[in-house]
This record gives sequence, structure tokens and C-alpha cells, in this order.
Amino acid sequence: MSEQRTELDKLGEFGLIEHLTKNFKNTQSSTRLGIGDDAAVLSISKSQSQLISTDMLIEGVHFNLMYMPLKHLGYKAVAVNVSDICAMNGVAEQITVSIAVSNRFPVEALEELYDGIHTACKVYNVDLIGGDTSSSLSGLTISITAIGRVKKDAITYRSGAKEHDLLVVTGDLGAAYVGLQVLEREKEVYNTNPNIQPDLDGHDYIIERQLKPEARVDVVKFLKELDVKPTAMIDISDGLASEVLHICKSSKVGCHIYDEKLPIDGQTSMTAIEFNLDPNTCAMNGGEDYELLFTISQSDYEKIKGNPHMTVIGHITDEKAGRYYVDKNGAAIELTAQGWNHFED
Amino acid sequence: MSEQRTELDKLGEFGLIEHLTKNFKNTQSSTRLGIGDDAAVLSISKSQSQLISTDMLIEGVHFNLMYMPLKHLGYKAVAVNVSDICAMNGVAEQITVSIAVSNRFPVEALEELYDGIHTACKVYNVDLIGGDTSSSLSGLTISITAIGRVKKDAITYRSGAKEHDLLVVTGDLGAAYVGLQVLEREKEVYNTNPNIQPDLDGHDYIIERQLKPEARVDVVKFLKELDVKPTAMIDISDGLASEVLHICKSSKVGCHIYDEKLPIDGQTSMTAIEFNLDPNTCAMNGGEDYELLFTISQSDYEKIKGNPHMTVIGHITDEKAGRYYVDKNGAAIELTAQGWNHFED
Repeated sequence: MSEQRTELDKLGEFGLIEHLTKNFKNTQSSTRLGIGDDAAVLSISKSQSQLISTDMLIEGVHFNLMYMPLKHLGYKAVAVNVSDICAMNGVAEQITVSIAVSNRFPVEALEELYDGIHTACKVYNVDLIGGDTSSSLSGLTISITAIGRVKKDAITYRSGAKEHDLLVVTGDLGAAYVGLQVLEREKEVYNTNPNIQPDLDGHDYIIERQLKPEARVDVVKFLKELDVKPTAMIDISDGLASEVLHICKSSKVGCHIYDEKLPIDGQTSMTAIEFNLDPNTCAMNGGEDYELLFTISQSDYEKIKGNPHMTVIGHITDEKAGRYYVDKNGAAIELTAQGWNHFED
Repeated sequence: MSEQRTELDKLGEFGLIEHLTKNFKNTQSSTRLGIGDDAAVLSISKSQSQLISTDMLIEGVHFNLMYMPLKHLGYKAVAVNVSDICAMNGVAEQITVSIAVSNRFPVEALEELYDGIHTACKVYNVDLIGGDTSSSLSGLTISITAIGRVKKDAITYRSGAKEHDLLVVTGDLGAAYVGLQVLEREKEVYNTNPNIQPDLDGHDYIIERQLKPEARVDVVKFLKELDVKPTAMIDISDGLASEVLHICKSSKVGCHIYDEKLPIDGQTSMTAIEFNLDPNTCAMNGGEDYELLFTISQSDYEKIKGNPHMTVIGHITDEKAGRYYVDKNGAAIELTAQGWNHFED
């Protein structure tokens, strides 16, 4: 090994993948797209492509079993992978699930986990086709690969956004992050005094958004029914700011996002304020909402106008115009991604 | 969670997967085979199927970085997944690689790991199409999914072995396990006195078999050239005894394996004896050889006769005749799998 030592947090998660894989070249004719989008794209027939996406969830990094029931964890692990397939405008059909667990877990705990995986498989109509079960020296690790299908001409990449396109987001934002704050607070209370019951009243929605997010398979269907093909699409796992920047970078464009357009649920706003957090900041940087962010041509605006699942939050500009977040007073702030960066912890 | 507590080692690795997934049902028309073979089988066109296999490698369980260089580890992680595709008589085309690492690893260490992955991708002609990089609280975890292709009529399942078929194994057996003993011994010596240089002289072959196993992609080609379609096939990851039992169980047949037929390299035998180990036991139960075990119809015997890569080690019997290991004196010992069971550690 070289004697030089560069710390992992120097590159960040995305920089690290880019750095480690920069010398890899694709040579198989079936490989249409490798690393760099929500899923890889393989050509399987004249009209159809296959989508492959993979994710790893690690105890203590991505989840805390103190407030995350194993059944919910199983469900969420499947949902976040299905979400990646949705982000390519595809339909998930299969998953593989590998787990590594320490002996601290009894069989009954894994039954709970697989119960959640099973429920998600039924809800999302995906088959569990493989996996690996192994022991670990500490904690629980879950690795899931999702396999989906999409018509070749329907695939939405991150790279297709064009100047003047509208930026659209589904559902509402920030709830999962604010829900996490509530769970973290109750954990602290419990650690101080285990006799106090957690006080989660009035936070049901945001806690459910954190513990049991849903992949927007419905949105993929709506888009098809509305005959709208987004010019670019991504799912919101790391936070809106980070995802918008991914689209802008891949599409070589700029953007304006309007503060006052951000869809935020009332419970999210109220609880954020309770925690002295700015609701808009939670929406921009919270992450884990698993909503879809996409761009559409202005000519498609009439088709989505008034749709309760979709909100126009801004538009795409020329790359030179920059990437900005515009506040209520019209002040433009340059967008920076403050989404998760696990290596900085 | 239920109050009952069943320890993981009660079920064993294969029993655990079976138990956890027994309620899952496949509903997608593209799913041809789910859990239970070396790879899942998806239908992608009239004549072609896709093979999907996944594996997780965990530091301290599957590898020890004290004697496993990261570059070798990267290579091996790819090779063992490609081997699963070979076991279905297919050709691997793509892989995804997810890793979780603690901050203890510098970027340079991961460069070594990816260097090995890169080399394996070139050797096996597979594209790296995706993955995930994340931090872990301790150690290194690697999860790989391999994607391959095979003509529908060429797929070899574990379940096709028939009475009177011949049992054939490729290469030689037991070397990886005996190589591991040498590495473990030198680790102990080093732990006692770090000034003593490891003594690996005369053990090159068996150490390479442990640190840098190869997937038998050549055998898949040979079989095609010889016009031999095995009736059943599996790769030897957990040990010959365990794999033979998998074929027998899936195919509902019995078998006789002949002790004196086992292909064992001279270096393996000599070193095994040095360690007071029976070379045949190492061949039967050692594991990690990543050779292929297959069954062929007797009518194909002439095609493989004298082939330096293939050795007939026994034959398939009726299920009622049992599964036996026959020693030099003709004594038949019932086969039991003593392959790895990580949960028993």
C-alpha cells in the first residue's frame, strides 16, 4: 500500500465513487449506462431496457434500531430501492436482499425484518429472487439490488433537462428529516429516563415519513397516463438541493428554485419551528423524502397543472446563469448541497 | 418483537434463508427462478435468460486483511460472483459493487481494492455498472451482484442430475483451505514476534488458490466446445461435500463419491500432512476452491474423457441408495456437509 494517507471525507461520497471508478470502461454491448444515475441501464430487447440499482444500509449509519422497528426497516430498505427504479421512469420487478447480522440478533428479529420486506414486495409487486445471509462481527447490514424494466423511449436520465424546462417535485418535502428530529429527541429523553414513554403525539405523519417512506410508483403511472415524459428525473434521497444539483450537473444547466413554492406539510412546518429549524431548510436539505424531482418541457405544463401530487418549484436556466435558490424577497442564494455526507460524521 | 429467542446458529446459513423466505411468492412473469440455485433466472427474450447472483464479504468473517492484500480481495470478490454465473453455464457481463468502510481506511486503501476489482473486470470481461459507497462503524463490507446471460436451453440448474449420471469436478480441490492454514500459521508467528518474516516458501500455489481464486469461465467455454450440457452444475464455494449434497437434494437423487478419485494437487497433500490434516478431508470440506461440480449423462463420457480440466469422481444413484463417500477399502461413509457455517463460530 502507498504510504500516502488521504482521509475518506476529503472526497465525499460522490467524489469517492467517481475517483475510484474513473478508470473503468464498459465493454459489453448490453451495457447502455453504468455508474452515474439512479440506476444502470442494460439493453435486453429491441424495445425494452432493464434498470439495475443497488443500495446498502448500515446500522448506526443509515438507521438506528432504537427507534426503527425491524419490520419498518425491511419495508424501507425495499422502498428506497424501488424508488431508484421509479426515478428512471421504470417499474421494479425483482429484488435481491443480502444481510449480515451479528449473533446478538435472534431468528425472531430477522423474521420481523423479512416480514417488512415481504410486505413491501407485495405492495410494490416485486419478487425476492436471491440474496445472501451471513454473520457479521457487529450490527446489521442490508444490501439490496432492485431490477426493473422500462420501454427504451421512456427512460428518464438525470442528463436531459433543458433551458426553460419546469422543475417539478412530487408530494411534500422535509417531513422525513423533521420526523427524525422527533425520534432523536425521544431517544435522548429515554436515555435520560427509561421510564418516560416516548411522546410522539401529533407527529404521526412526519414519523411515518421517516420510518415508512413510500416509493412513488403511483407517479410513474400518473406520468404515463398524462402522457408526460420528464426530460430528467431523480429521486430525493439526499435532499432537494443535492438532487437539483445532480440534475444541473448532469444536464449542464442552471436553475432557479423558489422558496415560496416548496411543498411543505403543516405538521412538518410546525414541528420544524418547535425545533428552531427553518422549514425551508429542512425541505431543501433534509433528505430521505423519496419523492421524485423532475423537469418537463413548458409545453407539458397544462397536463400537470393542478395535479395534487405535483408542484412546480422553479425552472431550468442556461448553465452560465448559475444555480439559485430565490427567497421571498427575491434574493438569490447560490445552491450548495448540504445533503448527507456520511464520511463527514 | 416476539419474546421467544431462537439463536441464529440453530438453523444454519441455508436453513435460515429457507426459513425467512418461505412465505415469499414470485408473481412477475419475467421471474423464472428465484432463491435456491447459484443464481436467479430472469426471462429477457425468447431465446435468452439473464442470471443474477449476489454475495456479501465481511471483514473478520470472510476475509482477514492481515494477510489478504486489498487488491487480491477486490479481485476475489469479483471472481466468486462470476463463478456463480459460471455454475449456471452462463457468461457474466456486468457487476455492481457496494462497499461500506470505516474511517480507518484511507482513500489509498480503497484505490488498492478497486485496482483488484478493475483487474478482475478486465480478465472476466465484465462491466462495473453501479454501486454504493458508504461509511461503516467498523471494518469493511463488500456486496457484489453479478449479472450474466445464457441461452435458455443451456441453463444448468442444481436440480437436473439423474440416476447413473457421472459426477465431474474441475481442477483440483482442497488447495484454498490448506493455503489458508499456512496464512493463519504465519499470522500467529507474526503476532508472537513481528520481526520474523512470514515463511511462505513452497506454498505459492495453495496460497494463490486462497488469495486469488479464479472463476472457471474457461470450463463454460470448454463445455460448449465439447457440446456437453451438464445435467446439473454448482460451484464449489463451501466444500465439495456440501455442494454434492445441494445437487442431490435439489435433484432428489443419491450419489457415490470415490475417495481415490479426488483431484488433489501435490502441494496441497504435502502441506495438509504437515498440518496433520487428511488431504481428502480438505478436498471434501475445505471450500473456497471455486471449481465447478457437475453431472453429465454417461453418453457424454467420451467427450470429456482425458480432459485435463475435468475429473470423474463418482456417480449419481437413486435417492433411496443414499449419499456416500467410498474410501479406498470400499467402506461407504454417509456424506454430511461440514462446509462453512458462519453462524456456528
